[in-house]
Amino acid sequence: MSVHTSKEFERELRTLRERLLAMGGRAEQQIQRAIDALRRRSDELADEVIRCDAAIDRDEVEIDELAFLVLARRQPVASDLRFVMTALKIVTDVERIGDLAVNIAKRVRELNRHPTEEVYGLMEQLAALVMAALRGALDAFVHGDADAAERVIAGDPEIDVLNTDVIRAALGAASREAHEVGRWLALSSISRYLERIGDHSTNIAEMVIYSVRGRDVRHHHGGEQE
Amino acid sequence: MSVHTSKEFERELRTLRERLLAMGGRAEQQIQRAIDALRRRSDELADEVIRCDAAIDRDEVEIDELAFLVLARRQPVASDLRFVMTALKIVTDVERIGDLAVNIAKRVRELNRHPTEEVYGLMEQLAALVMAALRGALDAFVHGDADAAERVIAGDPEIDVLNTDVIRAALGAASREAHEVGRWLALSSISRYLERIGDHSTNIAEMVIYSVRGRDVRHHHGGEQE
Repeated sequence: MSVHTSKEFERELRTLRERLLAMGGRAEQQIQRAIDALRRRSDELADEVIRCDAAIDRDEVEIDELAFLVLARRQPVASDLRFVMTALKIVTDVERIGDLAVNIAKRVRELNRHPTEEVYGLMEQLAALVMAALRGALDAFVHGDADAAERVIAGDPEIDVLNTDVIRAALGAASREAHEVGRWLALSSISRYLERIGDHSTNIAEMVIYSVRGRDVRHHHGGEQE
Repeated sequence: MSVHTSKEFERELRTLRERLLAMGGRAEQQIQRAIDALRRRSDELADEVIRCDAAIDRDEVEIDELAFLVLARRQPVASDLRFVMTALKIVTDVERIGDLAVNIAKRVRELNRHPTEEVYGLMEQLAALVMAALRGALDAFVHGDADAAERVIAGDPEIDVLNTDVIRAALGAASREAHEVGRWLALSSISRYLERIGDHSTNIAEMVIYSVRGRDVRHHHGGEQE
């Protein structure tokens, strides 16, 4: 491979990394927006989340195409091949995180039809943890930092516990006010969506470790299923 | 590429296909077992589902390794490359279907602590549709049949509607018997897990179309998010 070709190849890998990172940033913004919509009881913000999902969907298709071209043209091996495979897996998780932000926005729209209520101390904590996990996983990917990825994985049980706390609180409230059960169902759905975003962040972190160390750590740690 | 090498390559692609199909069969069996556990109120069957998930997890790691080796050694292009990329995506969906079967089994264990109840007409219908979708998507993959994959995608809205019906029924029952709200929450969770298995089947079908036609159909049809 000539020096020139090798430089081209490196540029393509960098583009792949940058595109994926930009997509991840968009997904983070969508979660933030959905949580803001919840906090401010804003249908407008919720609608914006729903509308903006198309950009993330386009990212997915374009990044997959880019990965296909890199594999076809450059036929990478060893760590470069692992990197492209990792990108292919991660892009799917990020796209689904985008879908989950849309799901949260839809539940917010339902909640907005119910009267105001006390919440959201626990939910805010949960959202903060989940967004930190996603950010951590994306940073680990950018810097190829397997230790940082391990910290993301280590943090997932805390997210699971907090999700259970939110659902238990919603359940208790639902038993006291049976007529408002729909409201509490929507709240527990949002909590579950956040927890699933946490799981996707763990998936991303696992793929980063695979990419960096060439060793598969999936299914070697405890914790809840998807 | 010599005839010999080409034959070797074809054999590897066939192995990849067969391994993925066997994994899909295992996932189907897990859903079936989880629904049987629900129907018969059997903790033993539910535990079996939880225990058997490890085999699906191993499948995922091994199939990814196989795909890596094929890409590294054979450096496929065009439709062969698309096929391997498809396999990499599908394996993730099948693994998560396995996780969802485990989630159903865990909710069944919760339900078994509550008294017997009327159910499960709608839930059985939903489970039957979802299993047909998964089977259809896997068959489409084996036969490289994009038309069959399109039928799977076309069937997804019916699954979404049925899921909404089940959750609405659970919600109505929960408002009437507030003290049994936990039972109905578990039922709606199971319904949601089934619906998500339907979504993963749609994802698989979309990747089959991509693999066969070399054209990306994701995000070009309507319907609910993930």
